[in-house]
Amino acid sequence: MTRLAQDISRKAGMPPGSLVHVGGRKAEQARITVVRYNETHYEESEVADVSECLPPEGFEGVTWVNVDGIHDTGILQRIGEMFGLHHLLVEDILNTGQRAKLDNYGDYLFLVVKDLSRCPESGGTVTEQISFVLGHGYVLSFQEIEGDGFDPVRQRLRDGNPRLRGGGADYLVYALLDAVVDNYFVVLEELGERIEDLEDDVLADPGPEDLHQIHELRREMLFFRRSIWPLREVINRMERGESRFVAEETQPYLRDVYDHTIQVIETVETAREMLAGMHDIYLSAISNRMNSVMKVLTIISTIFIPLTFLAGVYGMNFHFMPELRWTWAYPALWAFMIAISLLMLAIFRRKKWL
Amino acid sequence: MTRLAQDISRKAGMPPGSLVHVGGRKAEQARITVVRYNETHYEESEVADVSECLPPEGFEGVTWVNVDGIHDTGILQRIGEMFGLHHLLVEDILNTGQRAKLDNYGDYLFLVVKDLSRCPESGGTVTEQISFVLGHGYVLSFQEIEGDGFDPVRQRLRDGNPRLRGGGADYLVYALLDAVVDNYFVVLEELGERIEDLEDDVLADPGPEDLHQIHELRREMLFFRRSIWPLREVINRMERGESRFVAEETQPYLRDVYDHTIQVIETVETAREMLAGMHDIYLSAISNRMNSVMKVLTIISTIFIPLTFLAGVYGMNFHFMPELRWTWAYPALWAFMIAISLLMLAIFRRKKWL
Amino acid sequence: MTRLAQDISRKAGMPPGSLVHVGGRKAEQARITVVRYNETHYEESEVADVSECLPPEGFEGVTWVNVDGIHDTGILQRIGEMFGLHHLLVEDILNTGQRAKLDNYGDYLFLVVKDLSRCPESGGTVTEQISFVLGHGYVLSFQEIEGDGFDPVRQRLRDGNPRLRGGGADYLVYALLDAVVDNYFVVLEELGERIEDLEDDVLADPGPEDLHQIHELRREMLFFRRSIWPLREVINRMERGESRFVAEETQPYLRDVYDHTIQVIETVETAREMLAGMHDIYLSAISNRMNSVMKVLTIISTIFIPLTFLAGVYGMNFHFMPELRWTWAYPALWAFMIAISLLMLAIFRRKKWL
Amino acid sequence: MTRLAQDISRKAGMPPGSLVHVGGRKAEQARITVVRYNETHYEESEVADVSECLPPEGFEGVTWVNVDGIHDTGILQRIGEMFGLHHLLVEDILNTGQRAKLDNYGDYLFLVVKDLSRCPESGGTVTEQISFVLGHGYVLSFQEIEGDGFDPVRQRLRDGNPRLRGGGADYLVYALLDAVVDNYFVVLEELGERIEDLEDDVLADPGPEDLHQIHELRREMLFFRRSIWPLREVINRMERGESRFVAEETQPYLRDVYDHTIQVIETVETAREMLAGMHDIYLSAISNRMNSVMKVLTIISTIFIPLTFLAGVYGMNFHFMPELRWTWAYPALWAFMIAISLLMLAIFRRKKWL
Amino acid sequence: MTRLAQDISRKAGMPPGSLVHVGGRKAEQARITVVRYNETHYEESEVADVSECLPPEGFEGVTWVNVDGIHDTGILQRIGEMFGLHHLLVEDILNTGQRAKLDNYGDYLFLVVKDLSRCPESGGTVTEQISFVLGHGYVLSFQEIEGDGFDPVRQRLRDGNPRLRGGGADYLVYALLDAVVDNYFVVLEELGERIEDLEDDVLADPGPEDLHQIHELRREMLFFRRSIWPLREVINRMERGESRFVAEETQPYLRDVYDHTIQVIETVETAREMLAGMHDIYLSAISNRMNSVMKVLTIISTIFIPLTFLAGVYGMNFHFMPELRWTWAYPALWAFMIAISLLMLAIFRRKKWL
Repeated sequence: MTRLAQDISRKAGMPPGSLVHVGGRKAEQARITVVRYNETHYEESEVADVSECLPPEGFEGVTWVNVDGIHDTGILQRIGEMFGLHHLLVEDILNTGQRAKLDNYGDYLFLVVKDLSRCPESGGTVTEQISFVLGHGYVLSFQEIEGDGFDPVRQRLRDGNPRLRGGGADYLVYALLDAVVDNYFVVLEELGERIEDLEDDVLADPGPEDLHQIHELRREMLFFRRSIWPLREVINRMERGESRFVAEETQPYLRDVYDHTIQVIETVETAREMLAGMHDIYLSAISNRMNSVMKVLTIISTIFIPLTFLAGVYGMNFHFMPELRWTWAYPALWAFMIAISLLMLAIFRRKKWL
Repeated sequence: MTRLAQDISRKAGMPPGSLVHVGGRKAEQARITVVRYNETHYEESEVADVSECLPPEGFEGVTWVNVDGIHDTGILQRIGEMFGLHHLLVEDILNTGQRAKLDNYGDYLFLVVKDLSRCPESGGTVTEQISFVLGHGYVLSFQEIEGDGFDPVRQRLRDGNPRLRGGGADYLVYALLDAVVDNYFVVLEELGERIEDLEDDVLADPGPEDLHQIHELRREMLFFRRSIWPLREVINRMERGESRFVAEETQPYLRDVYDHTIQVIETVETAREMLAGMHDIYLSAISNRMNSVMKVLTIISTIFIPLTFLAGVYGMNFHFMPELRWTWAYPALWAFMIAISLLMLAIFRRKKWL
Repeated sequence: MTRLAQDISRKAGMPPGSLVHVGGRKAEQARITVVRYNETHYEESEVADVSECLPPEGFEGVTWVNVDGIHDTGILQRIGEMFGLHHLLVEDILNTGQRAKLDNYGDYLFLVVKDLSRCPESGGTVTEQISFVLGHGYVLSFQEIEGDGFDPVRQRLRDGNPRLRGGGADYLVYALLDAVVDNYFVVLEELGERIEDLEDDVLADPGPEDLHQIHELRREMLFFRRSIWPLREVINRMERGESRFVAEETQPYLRDVYDHTIQVIETVETAREMLAGMHDIYLSAISNRMNSVMKVLTIISTIFIPLTFLAGVYGMNFHFMPELRWTWAYPALWAFMIAISLLMLAIFRRKKWL
Repeated sequence: MTRLAQDISRKAGMPPGSLVHVGGRKAEQARITVVRYNETHYEESEVADVSECLPPEGFEGVTWVNVDGIHDTGILQRIGEMFGLHHLLVEDILNTGQRAKLDNYGDYLFLVVKDLSRCPESGGTVTEQISFVLGHGYVLSFQEIEGDGFDPVRQRLRDGNPRLRGGGADYLVYALLDAVVDNYFVVLEELGERIEDLEDDVLADPGPEDLHQIHELRREMLFFRRSIWPLREVINRMERGESRFVAEETQPYLRDVYDHTIQVIETVETAREMLAGMHDIYLSAISNRMNSVMKVLTIISTIFIPLTFLAGVYGMNFHFMPELRWTWAYPALWAFMIAISLLMLAIFRRKKWL
Repeated sequence: MTRLAQDISRKAGMPPGSLVHVGGRKAEQARITVVRYNETHYEESEVADVSECLPPEGFEGVTWVNVDGIHDTGILQRIGEMFGLHHLLVEDILNTGQRAKLDNYGDYLFLVVKDLSRCPESGGTVTEQISFVLGHGYVLSFQEIEGDGFDPVRQRLRDGNPRLRGGGADYLVYALLDAVVDNYFVVLEELGERIEDLEDDVLADPGPEDLHQIHELRREMLFFRRSIWPLREVINRMERGESRFVAEETQPYLRDVYDHTIQVIETVETAREMLAGMHDIYLSAISNRMNSVMKVLTIISTIFIPLTFLAGVYGMNFHFMPELRWTWAYPALWAFMIAISLLMLAIFRRKKWL
């Protein structure tokens, strides 16, 4: 999904807050799952109607509403109304060309992040936009398609992991962010392996398909970087400034995710520099090989051209060419020509042209 | 309109505030439209005389004066006097070589932005300078030519869009800025499609016209970036600092435009990096193809040159050349020559030169 | 005057404040003009003796002393003493290798700027250092040579331009700075035209002289940038910080000059990127053309080499060559050779090598 | 250990604080050594059980626990519990893909640094992650493998170096950091020598193996830089901000290590620029040599081709070729051909083609 | 002395404050000169024993102790003890791989700068580290070798220059720094001349030795920059922050040195960009020349190859070749061949291949 320009222009001219789903990926059917938990209690349900999302009166704990599939703008609008979300926020959820960002709306934080995964069919990297709303006692998460990296988090919730069950909504957001960033490592490791394989290939036997691969990997790294770079700032601001939503106990965890993000960014930068270096290596290798081919061919020509000249000379029809009558002239000429060839080869070898 | 140096020098040596229209584009005839609205009232009129711009006594609402065509310096001067504008500001409106900027004149804010659009005839990007003055209860907008992206805003006003009709002058400026930035996406998407088409072309079958296209697109991106880059700072300052003119409710909207601007800038940067990468690909591909042509041609020569030498040898006129009299010498030589050719082809193939 | 290292080293080892004129350009004879004005009064005189520079007792207004030619260190020293200038300042006036700067000496501001103009003879850009001292009620300006862009300012003073005559010494400095920056636009426009002509030339028919021109223009842009870049900071600091010398009414004017300076810097940066792009285009074009020449020539050789081989074969003197006796052998060979040539041409054309 | 992507992904999906050793290097057996000292007392012991690490009641001085080998997560966990370490910290010790960092956990500082050393077998640079915990009266250090640069520090402790024995735990951390940074110099010097040898080689007689070496050194420098760059910030923050753990007397020492780190970083940057320059030199040299080979070969062909043509002319079988019958025609042709060759050689020489 | 890695590693593993002279340059014999002066008094002596360095009781004025040759660590240690210098400072004096820096030790400032000079024999740039200690009433300066740029300062002191004799120790340090920076201009001017000569050479007649020169100059500029860059920060901090040691009257002088340093840095940057440009020019020129050589040679071949083919045709031995018997066939063929040659030359010329 590494298209250059998202088709956000489809919305040009509409009033702000117009709910149009901008993005090419759709889940079959929007699916809403609600998880409610506190230290002692856990329930998980898939709801058909948006109104079931709200926690029951008097519930003490965290409600996590996850929406898979954001093309159904009606659902989003109703959730927005129920939780009192700003209409610009709802619009941002739908606009999948967003960069990662953190908006503080006073009553809740709004986070947009990019989830990356490898598409097994095409071999390319797939970007999905995930939006989080962190309010008091609830977390909303919106994904473009079903299937995510959140299953481990759900499993830990079910297993009653005390830190997760006892933490607040902020800790849940941390856990989900951590899952997203962990995904980067998975993708990055696969890309890293491809880069290292490619490097071995380029050093051993470079071919034109390597150039295309280098180009493609550079492009993927470009989009990777573009997806992750703003996340750094987002997590940093979340760790430091927005303390009203983030408990002090959660801060070291966010710092940990921050460190991981930096690690990812650095690896991407290193990969980019390695790919640039490989491009240079590739060009040098190709040019080297071409040169040596041309050199050998030219040397063959150079050796035969004077010999052909000599053969031409004794093919002339002058009436008075004394050599033509000598008995040993023919073998002598052969000997001379062989000698010249060997001499030229020796010179070329000594000059390291061969 | 991507000229390098605007002919601002025409003004060199004049006192500040000299009203000279610096710019090459002119609307046929300056056209002034006045829109007055509040939550309940809406009127729209084209005025012939500048004096009709001022709102009537006691009018509670927003007055939006839009001027299409800024070459008529007399009109500008009179508007300037009527609204008490600084003469440097009026000069800036006329100087279309400005970069986007925000000046706080105390009683009003002055904004300059660049509107981009695709010229359908030439296929290039056209820049138009739009200046806004945001005062208490009024907005002035000045455009170089008629025809703009403001029609959707006008339509929403007419339709009685409550947020727009109920918002103040600041919200109107936001809506106009949003229309300008939306235009960027339209232009960017078209450019993005051209870049992606070009990339496919370069990867499949690069030709010299691709190089010119890459060059042209790089140049357009250069001017695009130059037009948008300062806008980022302008909107940021408007959102944060100048709170006297911008109501708190309008701030999230400006932040939204700000996010869009960042998105545009990032896309432009990515496009620039992609174009640089395509340039490399193009050069490699051209050089690869050239090399393989030269290689094949040289191999043909290399195979025939020894054969020609042999033919030359048996064309010599020595009296004593025993081979010439052998009955099978001629077919034997043919066989030998064919064998040599095949051997050389086999060697070249094994060395992967073919 | 784009020499890399100014011969400031001539001064190495001297105590600070040693007045040695470092620079290659000299006015014939230092010329001192004094202008005194206020809202009602204006006088202008060329003085022979430095002592006439000081305003008469009780004069209320601005005194502007302009010195053309700074090689006469005696005059500078006396002016320095009369106006109580720090001896380092006087030294800085003489050292024409300075970069633009602003020094606040408490009782006066010291500004150094670079004036650029096109030398009509050589076609190159000429740099002149202009130094300003802005004190209470007086402005001193020092130029390397006679002839400057200040005539329009003088003319406006004479014409009694109310803003200039009514403004203080700070406004005069603004007006002079504005004249200097306007000059940049003149130079830039000429350079811009040369760049655009060159670009057309490079795209249409690149030749080696274009490369030299690109190189020369890059170098001029390098020095242009080096001259202007620090000016940005100077004017910015003057507008913001040094409020004691700059009246609040003058600040918008300085901001205007600041905007112009940014515009110049951006144009220079764009020009630099365009020149870098043209260099790439030039190299690609040259290499493309060379390649197509070599390709055509190689193709000619490749077609004739097998033919020559065939001719060689039938020039052999074997006694038993049945073909030689066939009646139609000769025309048949011609036909065969022509067929081979056409076949090869067809193959080359289909492979797009021609 | 310069792999691009560490296999941190192995941990993806686990809850935070999961103790999994991420890293490829293992000491045979985790080894724990405890050093206790103050100005008058020194003892050093290798302990089998973690519980022996804690200082005895009433001990006044510094306890330094060094763990070689971090794959035994059980040991780490018990140490963590004994010293009250945050579980994220323990996780960080195990994750050897960390960048250098400083975390302030309130009761202790946590430092991660990278130790570099040259692997004598492979000739490459080996990275080891060393983690320090600096608490009140104790220092914990964790290394991936046995064998480190800390022996000199131990020796100085044993020898009773007064500054070290009298300093607190912060001074010990300084001494250990200093040992790590000193190691950088050792590695850098060896790399520097390789670079300088390579440069001589490239200037004298460049070959394809040089290109691989340049590439390899660039890559090592890339990873070197990546390892050291964050250390700068770490030491700077430690020197300045975290005064609770760092006594004022230790600050100049930390500033000294800081200066050394800057020195290392600058040398690495210079080395990188030198390697980039060498790449250019290499490419130019290779291309130069290739060109001169091709030129000589082409010149040989160019001289012989017209001669071969002449020989061909007089090999024609026209009945009426008067020259063929002239007595001196054959030697005259030889003379003519030699004259042509010499003339061409003279022309080529004068044009500096030879 | 532009070695990449200084052999600081010799010290690895030693305790801090170990006095080992790290550096390759040694004065024959350490030489200590003491200068004492105030406004009325001046004495200058070379002392044999360190104890004579201290000023006599009751002396009011400045004591300047200059040490030429720092390999005698004993002398340094004793001076360090006498003036109460921190042992890390003494260590820094000995470590000649330092970058320029300013350390505030409370009772004194410690400055390290790099003195550059041209080595007349090798033609290269020589770096010397000079360390200053600025205390109340005294200045210590430490140089690696004898012979420096301080003689003019000494001469001014002897001549009784009032500003220098009346200024304090801070003014003396300023004067010495100024002498060092003046030296940069001398070196830079020489390098600048070499660059300009080289540029003329590259534009007129580029040869392989130019490439080596460009490479060498780039490298020198790299080390030049590395030496000066940190000085900027040092002087800036000295001017602004450390007011306790620097009198207000001295500040404008330091600002002047600061300006000079910026000027040097800018010139170095410009020189680096010029050298990069020259590299491009060189490559283009070499490739251009090579191309035109190859083109001419190939054109010669291309013209003769068809002719040779024709000659070969009429050298064939077919029995039935009617042309062979025509009387005018031979001269007609010559005419035809000459016509073909001229035609090809005309075509090549029209296509601008010649």
